[in-house]
Amino acid sequence: MEALVRVGLIGAGRIGTYHAESLALRVPRAQLAAVADPAPGSAEKLAGTYGARPYTDVQAMIEADGVDAVVIASTARAHTDLVVAAATAGKPVFCEKPMALSLADADRAIGAAAATGVPLQVGFNRRFAAGFADARDVVAAGGVGAVQLLRSLTRDPGLADPGGVPPWTIFRETLIHDFDALLWFAGAAGETTATEVYAVADALVAPDFKAAGLLDTSIVTIRFGNGAMATAEASFSAAYGYDVRAEVFGSGGMVTAGQQASSSMRHYSAQGVARQTVRGDTALFGDAYTAELAHFVDCARTGATPAVTGHDARAALGIALACITSVEESRPVRLDEVDPA
Amino acid sequence: MEALVRVGLIGAGRIGTYHAESLALRVPRAQLAAVADPAPGSAEKLAGTYGARPYTDVQAMIEADGVDAVVIASTARAHTDLVVAAATAGKPVFCEKPMALSLADADRAIGAAAATGVPLQVGFNRRFAAGFADARDVVAAGGVGAVQLLRSLTRDPGLADPGGVPPWTIFRETLIHDFDALLWFAGAAGETTATEVYAVADALVAPDFKAAGLLDTSIVTIRFGNGAMATAEASFSAAYGYDVRAEVFGSGGMVTAGQQASSSMRHYSAQGVARQTVRGDTALFGDAYTAELAHFVDCARTGATPAVTGHDARAALGIALACITSVEESRPVRLDEVDPA
Amino acid sequence: MEALVRVGLIGAGRIGTYHAESLALRVPRAQLAAVADPAPGSAEKLAGTYGARPYTDVQAMIEADGVDAVVIASTARAHTDLVVAAATAGKPVFCEKPMALSLADADRAIGAAAATGVPLQVGFNRRFAAGFADARDVVAAGGVGAVQLLRSLTRDPGLADPGGVPPWTIFRETLIHDFDALLWFAGAAGETTATEVYAVADALVAPDFKAAGLLDTSIVTIRFGNGAMATAEASFSAAYGYDVRAEVFGSGGMVTAGQQASSSMRHYSAQGVARQTVRGDTALFGDAYTAELAHFVDCARTGATPAVTGHDARAALGIALACITSVEESRPVRLDEVDPA
Amino acid sequence: MEALVRVGLIGAGRIGTYHAESLALRVPRAQLAAVADPAPGSAEKLAGTYGARPYTDVQAMIEADGVDAVVIASTARAHTDLVVAAATAGKPVFCEKPMALSLADADRAIGAAAATGVPLQVGFNRRFAAGFADARDVVAAGGVGAVQLLRSLTRDPGLADPGGVPPWTIFRETLIHDFDALLWFAGAAGETTATEVYAVADALVAPDFKAAGLLDTSIVTIRFGNGAMATAEASFSAAYGYDVRAEVFGSGGMVTAGQQASSSMRHYSAQGVARQTVRGDTALFGDAYTAELAHFVDCARTGATPAVTGHDARAALGIALACITSVEESRPVRLDEVDPA
Repeated sequence: MEALVRVGLIGAGRIGTYHAESLALRVPRAQLAAVADPAPGSAEKLAGTYGARPYTDVQAMIEADGVDAVVIASTARAHTDLVVAAATAGKPVFCEKPMALSLADADRAIGAAAATGVPLQVGFNRRFAAGFADARDVVAAGGVGAVQLLRSLTRDPGLADPGGVPPWTIFRETLIHDFDALLWFAGAAGETTATEVYAVADALVAPDFKAAGLLDTSIVTIRFGNGAMATAEASFSAAYGYDVRAEVFGSGGMVTAGQQASSSMRHYSAQGVARQTVRGDTALFGDAYTAELAHFVDCARTGATPAVTGHDARAALGIALACITSVEESRPVRLDEVDPA
Repeated sequence: MEALVRVGLIGAGRIGTYHAESLALRVPRAQLAAVADPAPGSAEKLAGTYGARPYTDVQAMIEADGVDAVVIASTARAHTDLVVAAATAGKPVFCEKPMALSLADADRAIGAAAATGVPLQVGFNRRFAAGFADARDVVAAGGVGAVQLLRSLTRDPGLADPGGVPPWTIFRETLIHDFDALLWFAGAAGETTATEVYAVADALVAPDFKAAGLLDTSIVTIRFGNGAMATAEASFSAAYGYDVRAEVFGSGGMVTAGQQASSSMRHYSAQGVARQTVRGDTALFGDAYTAELAHFVDCARTGATPAVTGHDARAALGIALACITSVEESRPVRLDEVDPA
Repeated sequence: MEALVRVGLIGAGRIGTYHAESLALRVPRAQLAAVADPAPGSAEKLAGTYGARPYTDVQAMIEADGVDAVVIASTARAHTDLVVAAATAGKPVFCEKPMALSLADADRAIGAAAATGVPLQVGFNRRFAAGFADARDVVAAGGVGAVQLLRSLTRDPGLADPGGVPPWTIFRETLIHDFDALLWFAGAAGETTATEVYAVADALVAPDFKAAGLLDTSIVTIRFGNGAMATAEASFSAAYGYDVRAEVFGSGGMVTAGQQASSSMRHYSAQGVARQTVRGDTALFGDAYTAELAHFVDCARTGATPAVTGHDARAALGIALACITSVEESRPVRLDEVDPA
Repeated sequence: MEALVRVGLIGAGRIGTYHAESLALRVPRAQLAAVADPAPGSAEKLAGTYGARPYTDVQAMIEADGVDAVVIASTARAHTDLVVAAATAGKPVFCEKPMALSLADADRAIGAAAATGVPLQVGFNRRFAAGFADARDVVAAGGVGAVQLLRSLTRDPGLADPGGVPPWTIFRETLIHDFDALLWFAGAAGETTATEVYAVADALVAPDFKAAGLLDTSIVTIRFGNGAMATAEASFSAAYGYDVRAEVFGSGGMVTAGQQASSSMRHYSAQGVARQTVRGDTALFGDAYTAELAHFVDCARTGATPAVTGHDARAALGIALACITSVEESRPVRLDEVDPA
């Protein structure tokens, strides 16, 4: 049997805690070796649950001998620097989205990984959800013909703390999943890029926080180089539970993915048909989270290029940045305006 | 038993033929009394099937004593003049969409009906489809809370003759159904109007006809006065059959309507699950066509104001015209730009 | 245009009232000419609504010159005699199920119709529901291969008055629909007959009425001559609304039919997914009721043999009678035991 | 972190191979320590893949110091003796269904586990499938009221080798899953037992093997002590893929479980709606297989009584034996006939 990949996890918050559990219990051939978090006591507590080593000095963990690969689940602002640090240390690195908040940072992360040749994977977990992956396979195999119309949406069950959400989160942290999915689907049967974006956004869920820059509802139109057109849609408050879906329509048919129930159970009563609704992304995408980390661990072992790279993170970020300009200036924005290269 | 309403039908084309059958066989308390069509032989043939009187002189039919009410199913360009003629003759009038191609014409039609006080109904049949009507009832009753995000789409099984389609048909004749549906849903729980529109459109189905002005694929973003945002989407070629759907999302939940099969039959085989797909609007909306004419006949008998009026036709047309400007100038267009009043 | 078929309706109860409305307003080429009911005032009231002639003397109506065809919607016990009377008078006759409560009576009805050659149709309305008809077409076309396993079920939203229900109603008046459907499906790809039946039944909904002979819940196993096996299932109280379904499984796949919502509307909320549930058979099978009467009116006009005949009524009744013996004697019962011919 | 449970697996066939992979890669806190199979080379090959120790002497493995718990996945005939051996060695034991082929054997297995107090779990994996577990929770919480009608079915994509199937497999190895599920559901809101069974069965898939005792299609009726009635249904050849479903109907509603697709992907084309169909039980029940072994490993660590015990295996076996008598004698069979105790 092959040796286990010893993973060092950075960040002991909500998603970090979930990744720790996955790495310790569910991801084949992985060992949760270390947990780093600068917050006092935080890494200790999480590491303790699974017999891993705790670090408050993140850089020390990155460089530790007993750590073969690094998983970054810290706050978004820190992502780029940590990718660069891990890559520079020659460690394969998995980074939660968003990998960067600017194209310059994205280039810096990509460059660092390229310099040492380590695998760099980004946490677009939707690509590892069975329904989405099967749908993409159908598109890639020509099952919908030439792609013409796409839709991707994210509706979250609710904001715990609207006050703590940074401006433009809806584009840079939420819809970025949809932008990646749309790029992935639009290019499945032949590579393409986004060319133009138009976004509307408002604070319909929590109007009191609009002044603070929080937008919670948005519709985005995206045009692609191959002629395809897409909408992406997000809301930060879905009363009926987590709702993430995709629809790809083309000259030969349509493919859809996504579900709103966590099991096949249906309960028929005078009130309607109840299901086990989904209240969190880990419930909806649990298998996908396991699968993306399993893929990363495989790439770390073999040196293979991950299926979702820093370039994918950069492409989705470009759309998010164009959306921000579009909302600020109330006009369609070409991708080459935000990325003149 | 009340006397039958004697209906005079104008137009013996595809939809006219279907309305004739409905009026003769399915619409309660209606009698197909006359059919008028200037094309030689056309009215005679259709009228003959149901024992109605044929006319080539449309104005003569409108004014005939044995005609209590008029149904207009001629070509779009003639609609406004025919509405005016019927209203002036004091006959309740049902007009297929679009009632007008300009706001001035819409005002002319509305004014003519107002002058004589006759009921004027427009053929937004989707409002009479059970699923859509039930969905609207849910929204009106507050079932989805404050409306935030809407979607309406029309995918037609295919263009018989792309060459014969007038420019901007996708907005003025196809998406106008979606615009009406979106206005109807967005305003269900409290009146509102569209304020801004952004449209992209292309010739992805029949690229060869783009030069002739035929756009066959489109995505439209609409903003409403109450904050709600919507997308409307159309394609002139759906490989899997007629697909018309609506989705209304709000602070309290979501409601959807629309179906792609004409019956509950499902056939499970190694190839998947086959259904009785829908190849024409009369198959998908047969009951709705009957119901809208039944409603019109009731209004004609009682003088009641129809549920879908000339004002609804005007409001949907406004969005269509804003879409045209949006595509021509590649920018969002405010409704007050196309309708300064 | 062809002359209307002038229909005389017998029975002004619940289903009679519905058929009256259908004949007057929805069935093409039919005229509700007369309504007969021995209960004082009953026929007068219903006939008055639609301008038909009322009769308390049923035989007089059957023989009246202005009546071209007869629709029987009286109480079950009277059905056979009325079929015989109408057939003897040379009038095409439509009879609600059950046409007879004994095989001898079934033979009497069939014989009377054969003697004068009039069309005799029985009210197995499920055959005219689009989903069921489409499913049967798939089976007939070989879409599921050799039929092996079938299921048909009827769950009624509830008994208004358990006290008024005659013994064995569950087999003779409710499941008889399922027996007909199963015979129709099992024989779709090659004629067959039922050979053996096993039934269990109990009073689970209204246990207090068991002593009076009311059974409200049942499961039936049926074997067919071609090897196929089926279950039929009934309950007189479905909390979630009317539920009628069929499933046909064979060597090449499966086909299903039936639905529990009256429209495509779905309402997603924290409580689940609500639909427009169905509380009555006329809501669930409204189109089927119209279609079966339209078929009858066509047969009455043309003399054609109806798609559902007295022989079909007899075959389904045979299964119902075998079920009664099976419950009484707690054993499987061969069809040739109840029908030695 | 707690020590891993070192599991010894018996049987390197199809399901044994799958359990090995689960234990090695997916089951938290488990280690695949040893694989035993008397067939030369068989254990060596499977054990080698995961770095486990191979045994051809099964008893030696059961007694080995490095084995904390035993998983039995050998041929059905050997199950009881192996349970007894493992229990006698004081090792917690998981046994694939059927645990026994006679009630005497079932009692022997139960007695052996009771004697040493080791946890004994049986492989009714359906109980660990999310949809089924959620459905049972609804029933247990009173969500369908008093249970009245149940259905459980198993349709397998196909028999690889009809010649190798022992007689009565359809009851003892296939439908035994449905019998367990029905007992589990029927008793969810208040304990109950099966009281009477009626079964029909035939060789409709592979008629040539009927003479050899292979029955491949069956319908079973079961009555329970609390009045509920059920059907169980099986076929050894489903053209559209693996189909396992349950339906529980009661005074307050209905709950269903089961699915026929392995992901949420739906592909709409002119041919219908294709899904990722399921061709094997490990694809359909992969998560359930992992979950049942995880549960067993937990019980092995803590000494807790498993959720599915030898008593459950015995109760389901009783129904299977009654089915065999029912088919042999063409009559309903009371459970106390096969189990006079």
